[in-house]
Amino acid sequence: TPVERARAPITVFSELVLIEYNAVFKFLLAQPELGLVDITKTQITLDSVRLNYVHGIWYEMPPKAEVLAHVDKAGPKPARKARALLVMGKEDPPTVREVLVTLENEGGGLPVASNLEAVNIHSSKWPEVPYNQRPHGVMDQVGQVIAIMKVYEQLNLFLKAAFNGYSYGESCEPKCIGDNYGAYQWLSDDIQRAIYIWFFMPEAAEGDGGYIHPLPLQVLAAGRKDDLSSWEITKWWFNGHFFPSISDLIAAWNADKDGLRTSFRILKPAGAAKLYSNFEARPGPKRGADQPVGPVAYEPYGRRFSVGQNNRVSWLGWQLYVGYLPHYGPRYMDVRFKGERIAYEISMQEALASYGGNDLSQANTVYLDSHWGIGASVRELVQGIDCPMTAAYMDAVTFFKGASKPNLHKNAICVFEHNPDTPTLRHYSYSYQFYGAVPGATLVVRMVSEINNYDYITDLILSNDGMLEVKVVTSGYVQATAFKAAYRDSFGYPLMYNISGTLHTHVLAWKVDLDIGGTQNSVNIHHMKVGEADDGAGGKIYINKYEAEIAETEDEAAYSTSMAAPKIPVVIAESKKNMFGSPRGYKVQLNRPLLNLEPEGYDRSKALGFMKYSFAATKHKDAEAHSSSIYGQARLSNPSTSLTDYVDGEPLRNQDVVVWVNSGLYHIPVAEDAPVTTTTGNSLGFSLVPFNWANESPATDMADMIEITSE
Amino acid sequence: TPVERARAPITVFSELVLIEYNAVFKFLLAQPELGLVDITKTQITLDSVRLNYVHGIWYEMPPKAEVLAHVDKAGPKPARKARALLVMGKEDPPTVREVLVTLENEGGGLPVASNLEAVNIHSSKWPEVPYNQRPHGVMDQVGQVIAIMKVYEQLNLFLKAAFNGYSYGESCEPKCIGDNYGAYQWLSDDIQRAIYIWFFMPEAAEGDGGYIHPLPLQVLAAGRKDDLSSWEITKWWFNGHFFPSISDLIAAWNADKDGLRTSFRILKPAGAAKLYSNFEARPGPKRGADQPVGPVAYEPYGRRFSVGQNNRVSWLGWQLYVGYLPHYGPRYMDVRFKGERIAYEISMQEALASYGGNDLSQANTVYLDSHWGIGASVRELVQGIDCPMTAAYMDAVTFFKGASKPNLHKNAICVFEHNPDTPTLRHYSYSYQFYGAVPGATLVVRMVSEINNYDYITDLILSNDGMLEVKVVTSGYVQATAFKAAYRDSFGYPLMYNISGTLHTHVLAWKVDLDIGGTQNSVNIHHMKVGEADDGAGGKIYINKYEAEIAETEDEAAYSTSMAAPKIPVVIAESKKNMFGSPRGYKVQLNRPLLNLEPEGYDRSKALGFMKYSFAATKHKDAEAHSSSIYGQARLSNPSTSLTDYVDGEPLRNQDVVVWVNSGLYHIPVAEDAPVTTTTGNSLGFSLVPFNWANESPATDMADMIEITSE
Ligand SMILES: [Ca+2]
Ligand SMILES: [Ca+2]
Ligand SMILES: [Ca+2]
Ligand SMILES: [Ca+2]
Ligand SMILES: [Cu+2]
Ligand SMILES: [Cu+2]
Repeated sequence: TPVERARAPITVFSELVLIEYNAVFKFLLAQPELGLVDITKTQITLDSVRLNYVHGIWYEMPPKAEVLAHVDKAGPKPARKARALLVMGKEDPPTVREVLVTLENEGGGLPVASNLEAVNIHSSKWPEVPYNQRPHGVMDQVGQVIAIMKVYEQLNLFLKAAFNGYSYGESCEPKCIGDNYGAYQWLSDDIQRAIYIWFFMPEAAEGDGGYIHPLPLQVLAAGRKDDLSSWEITKWWFNGHFFPSISDLIAAWNADKDGLRTSFRILKPAGAAKLYSNFEARPGPKRGADQPVGPVAYEPYGRRFSVGQNNRVSWLGWQLYVGYLPHYGPRYMDVRFKGERIAYEISMQEALASYGGNDLSQANTVYLDSHWGIGASVRELVQGIDCPMTAAYMDAVTFFKGASKPNLHKNAICVFEHNPDTPTLRHYSYSYQFYGAVPGATLVVRMVSEINNYDYITDLILSNDGMLEVKVVTSGYVQATAFKAAYRDSFGYPLMYNISGTLHTHVLAWKVDLDIGGTQNSVNIHHMKVGEADDGAGGKIYINKYEAEIAETEDEAAYSTSMAAPKIPVVIAESKKNMFGSPRGYKVQLNRPLLNLEPEGYDRSKALGFMKYSFAATKHKDAEAHSSSIYGQARLSNPSTSLTDYVDGEPLRNQDVVVWVNSGLYHIPVAEDAPVTTTTGNSLGFSLVPFNWANESPATDMADMIEITSE
Repeated sequence: TPVERARAPITVFSELVLIEYNAVFKFLLAQPELGLVDITKTQITLDSVRLNYVHGIWYEMPPKAEVLAHVDKAGPKPARKARALLVMGKEDPPTVREVLVTLENEGGGLPVASNLEAVNIHSSKWPEVPYNQRPHGVMDQVGQVIAIMKVYEQLNLFLKAAFNGYSYGESCEPKCIGDNYGAYQWLSDDIQRAIYIWFFMPEAAEGDGGYIHPLPLQVLAAGRKDDLSSWEITKWWFNGHFFPSISDLIAAWNADKDGLRTSFRILKPAGAAKLYSNFEARPGPKRGADQPVGPVAYEPYGRRFSVGQNNRVSWLGWQLYVGYLPHYGPRYMDVRFKGERIAYEISMQEALASYGGNDLSQANTVYLDSHWGIGASVRELVQGIDCPMTAAYMDAVTFFKGASKPNLHKNAICVFEHNPDTPTLRHYSYSYQFYGAVPGATLVVRMVSEINNYDYITDLILSNDGMLEVKVVTSGYVQATAFKAAYRDSFGYPLMYNISGTLHTHVLAWKVDLDIGGTQNSVNIHHMKVGEADDGAGGKIYINKYEAEIAETEDEAAYSTSMAAPKIPVVIAESKKNMFGSPRGYKVQLNRPLLNLEPEGYDRSKALGFMKYSFAATKHKDAEAHSSSIYGQARLSNPSTSLTDYVDGEPLRNQDVVVWVNSGLYHIPVAEDAPVTTTTGNSLGFSLVPFNWANESPATDMADMIEITSE
């Protein structure tokens, strides 16, 4: 039960438990000076839309120094606090604030929340955030409804004419068109909030294949400053044409301007092709029908890992705490191998999807998924499909998006040992009839974030040789638009006769607070070069060589990847040597770096600061906890937080180094993206690899190491 | 038995079987005009070293047009031929030739070899190869021995003085020093063959940990032109110093010049550290001791793949023939998915390891492993470690390196289904309470080439959604040298007190003869760009877009990867459209491209033509079968074959397109490379991905596709 769970020993790395969220929420609502309401129980009208409410609550990791003093030196347990994001619409001017609340009595009875602290916006020097940079919430639907209601009759008139009698809104049944919003954006100081809306007509009322059943109709809804009554649709896009108003659209349609009406065709799938957006069985033979299950894992000695209270995972010398933030997603704390801390924190920071297109909505889509809630979007995993039958499960609990109670996501995190079927170490010498090997072994910690249409499968993968990989693969529906033949040359290919996804990026960003032999580390960058040597007979040859340079400052340790000047960065402890005198370290391997091709100085690149560098290392600061923020989405040109601010010339040598990396790819949608995108072949991530951390391969103490000789 | 195996139906894609090799070898030896001897039965002396012998024999894939006419159109079975590489030392001038021999009577009795054909060197316009570009063989030891014998007494005098009484050659027991050669090279028209030799002193007489027990002594042995008696050691390297002769080395040692003698220390491991080069159990606790086996595969419905005669593999709609060439390694022929040919051939072409160092041997090491025999180096795989217990095995048979009979490598190829434990397709919608997925499934075809110190694990990985990946990971001993502290800044880190590997590349190159909807294909290159769009309110924004350009010529389809100008190449059938009018195709995904940093025009780059382009596409020609050759190793500046010659401006549109790709990484040796390099995190390869090849994800006909709805 929740109470029992709360009474389990809560460590400094434990995320909030159910009753802690409840205590904090209750406490916040009871503070008269905050004037907060439970937004889920409040009727939202045009008059009442300026409410004060709680957007989210999460565990505030205490300052690192306090945590380390507690964990490593038996110092006092740091105060347990929760951070809350408050949208303060009733204020004048309206604003967004963050506060801290202290939680007590963990050991004994129910938790008690107390001690409200006003604090800066996390990872920023801002005391507050402009109201219109607030996270998207139920309030936003008000402006949207107002805008649409102003043209409701004309809109339905047009819809029925263009789309075979289908209509929109009340009493549309059974021929209903739906709407959905893509991104929204601060367009100017006058138009501080505008939403791109698109319409769809699914094949079936159930299921959300609607994502790949868009209609060629999109609009921009916007209002002037904070005047909700001013919201209106300011731009119409229909089948490749832009119109300033619905009247202009209808007039053009009636006049058949440029063949708008007579050349218009909506091709819909028929017969078996109607299944294309779902997972129902297709007609025809099935592959694997006689043997529907392939190899499944069996553990002859039982499970080799353990999952403790508070999401502490242990396996073959590895140990870590699995956590999450509702916005940023997975965070893994105090990651240790063979008893030594490798990383204090490894955490996701952002998931970007930036689109293209020559319509209204796709062209303007830039998703920063921290805003939409990477961690709050985890859900129950399906045993045997999302994770093997041998997996263990943990729950996640989040409070986000203007909820009134914490959301318990049962079995949203799975842990399993995966046999890679490849030996970790291996050599066979036929000249000496000698074979040696250590079999492969990995542990996977998996969460899947379902951010509306898209599914991000995030794995932390530990190896028996001390390597650690973070890997993300994507699936889910592409965000689609009306297809035109010219798209093939610029944006994407049809998934269906008349629709297409459009070209987009996926970029994931992470924070990696490596602590190698303590917190005092440096970054040793190996610059790959060509050197010269002698062939032994006086001839000059070119050879491989590197120049290893320890970055003196943060600026020397921040760079974009270039294939012509490859770099291998290693986080080292200069004063901690292995048996052979090399500074102990871990290499950071970028598995799929992607550059941002936007022109220098583009103002909307500011919210994409996390991808300005392929690799960056900065001095740890509690106040620089994240490389992106929940507030960037609403105003790309003015994020509260940017990694670029952290890289400010500070000395980096023998400091508490924090590494920031990203990984990305281009996704050109094709027919094979239906019903959903495949996970195969498109993994993103990075690896951490022992680099003189040990004296020999850390896999050599595995009990299953084997040597076969001819004797 | 061999006879039965030969009587099994032999397809046009079958590699030679044992008795075919024997028949060809016997036939060749019986041709008086060739004057060939069985080199394994010939006493090699200074006088007899110029012998004519067979270096290798392999199956000559018939011209593609003949194969397709036979396979696709029931045309006649092409003549079955073997190619033999003949080193013709007795000729004047000595030379290297290749010949074809026809094999008959496959269906009935024993095969009969007949019809000797003189042909050009494969994949070249050369009728023959200069004798001193011949593949390395037993003959080379003669020059080496002659050179060493000239200084034998002085050398042993020095060895005993420098290395604690250890010596070399006869009667050294029990304190023996060994030697090994690194690369060899054509240094000038006068010195056409020179060998870099290094000395080692292993901890134990058994096992080949000798690779990581080098002594700081290396020499260059060379001879003038073809005069074997002229071979001598022309350069000495000891502990960082170069000497023209052993007398100079000894004189400097005796005079303690620059502290040569008094500052010299060989630090050897003691106690448990002595285990560092082998796989014997280390002292102390073992990880996994109580549970030594993790998850193993169990197949509740039995094996889902089949391995037929002649290495034909089938699995869930996939089908291919698994083959190999002794030099180039794995080749997969007639790869089909759902009955359609995807690739006529996918084959490894080269495995390069190019080193650095400030010594003699490492600095001059450039290995082109086709020369050393990627395919001939496959050996029996260890069940349960190299491949899971559920794997099936196939044999490989090669005839290479001056053998006198074919080498049967039992169980050298394994095939197994691997559960990736990640769904191929997956979406969960919490708003609609809708879940759909197709579980992941892959088939792996594995070969491991043990090229002396190094182990290349090559996997062909097929997915249930039509994706195909070729992936290579490496393990094995690094090639090591004496370590100096300055190495850390340039070449590598110590594996042991006094020794170190040195920085090197691994570059793998492949040929991918995609045939999409037939042989008439084009290459559509998607150039990633930034475009402009309107924010709907008159503001300009930047968006993602691509420019798709079909390469008109080979030159337009050959490029080095640049992160600032990303390209996605797709091989398409312009006239074959999917249901939605897009040309059917497969995307070629470069998983880890590496650029060659050697300066433009460097003459030894010529043998590295396979890595001049990250991606190249050329018009198929039977005469352009490979992108590298066995003859490049001996003379890097004059390879018989180079990919760069194939890219010569020919029209490429609607041609039989062949794609050439590579993948590489830098390996900085560290302490963790002992005992052997880890396989984790360093995979190389490429992927082939359906790109409008189908009308929806090809995984949707899997019997285990699942849909869960709230109904
Ligand atoms: Ca800083
Ligand atoms: Ca740190
Ligand atoms: Ca050509
Ligand atoms: Ca082709
Ligand atoms: Cu995508
Ligand atoms: Cu290597």
